[in-house]
Amino acid sequence: MLEENEPLLLRDDAEGIVRLTLNRPQARNALSRELMSALQAELERIGEDAGARVVVLAAAGPAFCAGHDLREIRENTGRDFYEALFAQCSALMQSIVRLPQPVIAEVGGIATAAGCQLVASCDLAVAAEGARFATPGVNIGLFCSTPMVALSRNVGRKQAMEMLLLGELMDAATALRFGLVNRVVPADRLGREVASMAGTIAAKSPLTLKIGKEAFYRQLEQPLDEAYAYASRVMTENMLARDAAEGIEAFLEKRPPVWSGA
Amino acid sequence: MLEENEPLLLRDDAEGIVRLTLNRPQARNALSRELMSALQAELERIGEDAGARVVVLAAAGPAFCAGHDLREIRENTGRDFYEALFAQCSALMQSIVRLPQPVIAEVGGIATAAGCQLVASCDLAVAAEGARFATPGVNIGLFCSTPMVALSRNVGRKQAMEMLLLGELMDAATALRFGLVNRVVPADRLGREVASMAGTIAAKSPLTLKIGKEAFYRQLEQPLDEAYAYASRVMTENMLARDAAEGIEAFLEKRPPVWSGA
Amino acid sequence: MLEENEPLLLRDDAEGIVRLTLNRPQARNALSRELMSALQAELERIGEDAGARVVVLAAAGPAFCAGHDLREIRENTGRDFYEALFAQCSALMQSIVRLPQPVIAEVGGIATAAGCQLVASCDLAVAAEGARFATPGVNIGLFCSTPMVALSRNVGRKQAMEMLLLGELMDAATALRFGLVNRVVPADRLGREVASMAGTIAAKSPLTLKIGKEAFYRQLEQPLDEAYAYASRVMTENMLARDAAEGIEAFLEKRPPVWSGA
Repeated sequence: MLEENEPLLLRDDAEGIVRLTLNRPQARNALSRELMSALQAELERIGEDAGARVVVLAAAGPAFCAGHDLREIRENTGRDFYEALFAQCSALMQSIVRLPQPVIAEVGGIATAAGCQLVASCDLAVAAEGARFATPGVNIGLFCSTPMVALSRNVGRKQAMEMLLLGELMDAATALRFGLVNRVVPADRLGREVASMAGTIAAKSPLTLKIGKEAFYRQLEQPLDEAYAYASRVMTENMLARDAAEGIEAFLEKRPPVWSGA
Repeated sequence: MLEENEPLLLRDDAEGIVRLTLNRPQARNALSRELMSALQAELERIGEDAGARVVVLAAAGPAFCAGHDLREIRENTGRDFYEALFAQCSALMQSIVRLPQPVIAEVGGIATAAGCQLVASCDLAVAAEGARFATPGVNIGLFCSTPMVALSRNVGRKQAMEMLLLGELMDAATALRFGLVNRVVPADRLGREVASMAGTIAAKSPLTLKIGKEAFYRQLEQPLDEAYAYASRVMTENMLARDAAEGIEAFLEKRPPVWSGA
Repeated sequence: MLEENEPLLLRDDAEGIVRLTLNRPQARNALSRELMSALQAELERIGEDAGARVVVLAAAGPAFCAGHDLREIRENTGRDFYEALFAQCSALMQSIVRLPQPVIAEVGGIATAAGCQLVASCDLAVAAEGARFATPGVNIGLFCSTPMVALSRNVGRKQAMEMLLLGELMDAATALRFGLVNRVVPADRLGREVASMAGTIAAKSPLTLKIGKEAFYRQLEQPLDEAYAYASRVMTENMLARDAAEGIEAFLEKRPPVWSGA
C-alpha cells in the first residue's frame, strides 16, 4: 500500500497555525508507538517554535483516532512493553497540556479509547455532527484507565462513569452537552470552524497565551487561597510584560495592538 | 401493619444482577439506623460475592428515599447518638463508592437529603420522569452537609448551592441537565431501562470493572501527573490479566470474549 | 458629573436582605481600587451584622461590571501597584466566598474580566436575558488569570478555556448551560426573580446558612474520606444547635419554625 510510505504525522504551517494530521487512515489513526513518537517529537519542536501560535490536531480519513494499536499490543506482550507503552502515551497526553500553545482537536469521526483521551487532553475541541466518542476498553477486558484521567477532568462523574462502564458510542451532541467538546458543526464546515477559532487565537499575544494556559492547569489543582496567591503573581508578571502595556494602550486608543511577544 | 414484619431491605439475584430494594414504603424508605445497617451488611456480602456483577439500588413504593428518619432522630438526642448516626451514614455512602461492583440507582420518586445523597453516591442513576430531588435540610435548620459531599461531586457549584440554600424540589429533567442522573425515562419504562443498563454491565469482565471503578475514584483526587503515573500502573496490571488478553484476542477474531475473572 | 459625588457603593436593607449596588454606571462599574475598598468594607460589616441574612450584589446602569479600571491601571504602573491591586481584588473575591451569608449576583448587563469573576465568586447568580459574560483579557495581552480561578471552579475545563482563549462575549443562555448562572429571566423580571430567591433564603435559619456555606467550600477541597469526616462533625454540631431541634419539631408538627439563630 502506498500509505505505508507516507509519514505517520503530517505538519502544515500557515500564519502561525500549525496543523498536525494523524496519518494512519488505514488503521483508523491508531496510536502505534511510532505515531506517538512522531507526535511527541513534533510537539517538542512546536514548543520551541516562536512562529507557532496555535496547534490544530486533525486526522486523515473518516476516523479521528481509534486509540492504541491492538495488533501491536498483541504482538508485544509482557510487563516491560506495557509499562513503556502507557508511560509513553501518558507523557504524550501531558505534553499537550504542557505545550505553551493552545491545542484544538478537530474531530471528524470516531475518537475512542486513547483517541477520546486525545480529544479530552486538548484545550479545545470541535466535532463534526457525525463524530462519535467512546471509552470502550471495558468491552475487551481492558478498562480505559489512562483515558479516564483526561475524560474525568472534562465531564461530570456520572457521565464519565456511563462512558467507562457501558463502553458505548456517544454522539457529538451528547459530547457537547457533557462538555467534552466546545462546538459541533456539520462535517463540511468542520475545517472552516476550526480554522476560524485557530485564527482568532493566533491573533493574540503568544506570550499571554503561554502565561495563561500554564496558569490555568496549575491553579486548577490548588485550593482556592493558594490558587489566588499564585494567579495574582501571574497577573503581576503578565502586567509587567510589554504586550500587556501595548494591549491596554491600544484598547484605550481604540486601535489594534501590535504584539512583541515580550 | 403487615409491612412491619417484612425485611427492611430486599435482595433479589438474577444473572449477576443484584437488586436491592429499600423496603420501608410507609416511611418513604427513610434511612433508619436499622435500614442503614441492613444495607451496609448486604453491601459487604456483595463485595465478597463473585457471582454479583452489578448492583441495582431500588425502592418499594412511590418514594425512593426521604433521607434520615426524623422521628428516630427526635427520639434519640445527644452528641453520641448524632456522631454515631452520621458516621454510620457516611460509612454507608463510601461503601457504595468502594464496592468493587458498579451500582445503579433506580429512582422512581422523591430522593431527598440522604436519599439524594444515595443517588449521588451511586456510580450511575436512572430516574423516572416524575422523580424529584432535594437537599431540604436547610428548611428544618439542619443543612444537608453530609449529602452535599456527594452532591457537590456530581453537579456544578452554583447548581449544588441552589439546591442546598433554597431546599426546593428539583425535577428529573433538571437533575439530568445538572448531571445528577444519567437518564430520565417514563415511569413505566424505568425498570426495563435499568435492567438493560445492568445487563450491559453484567456482560463485562468483573475483574475489569473492579479495577476500573477503584481507579476511577482514586485518580480523581490526584493531580494530573500522579493520576497518570497511577493509571499507567493500573493499565499495566490490567493488561497482564487473562481477561484482557482474552478480550483483545476475541476482538481481533471478531468473536465474543469468555471472561475467566482473572 | 453629578455621579462623581454619589457613593461608589449603595447599600439598601429590607427584611434581612442586603442589597449592594455597584454605583459607577458611567464607568460600567469598573472595579477601581476605591470601589473595591468600599465593597470590602461593606462585606466586613455585613459579616458581623446579625440582621443581614442574604446579600444581593447588583449594579447601577446597563452594565453589571466591566472588570478592573484600565485607566487607573495605565496611570499607576510598576510591580508594587500591580501586586497590591491583584492582592486586593483576590482578597475581595475570597471575602464573598467566606462571608457567612449567601450572596446572589443580579446580572443585568455585561460582566467581564473581574466582573465575570464577581459573578463566579457569588454563591448564586441570576442573569437577565441580555446579560453577557467574557474573560477578554487575552485581547489586550493580559490573560484573565485571577478571574479564571473563580470561573474554572464554576464551569467545565473546555468551556472555561474557550472563554479565556477566545476572549469573546458569551450570552446568558450559554452561561446557564455552562453552569455560571442559576437562572436567566427577561430583564423586566430580573429584580423580582432575585428578590424571590433572596426572600426564600432570608426565611431560613441564619445559623444554618452560615454553617452550611462554610462547610460547602471547605469540603470541596478535601478528598472524599476527609470530606465525610469533616461534614459529619459539622452535621453533629448543627444538630446540637437549637435551630435544628426547633426545625425538626416544627416539621413533624406541621407548623412553621421560629429561628433563634442559636
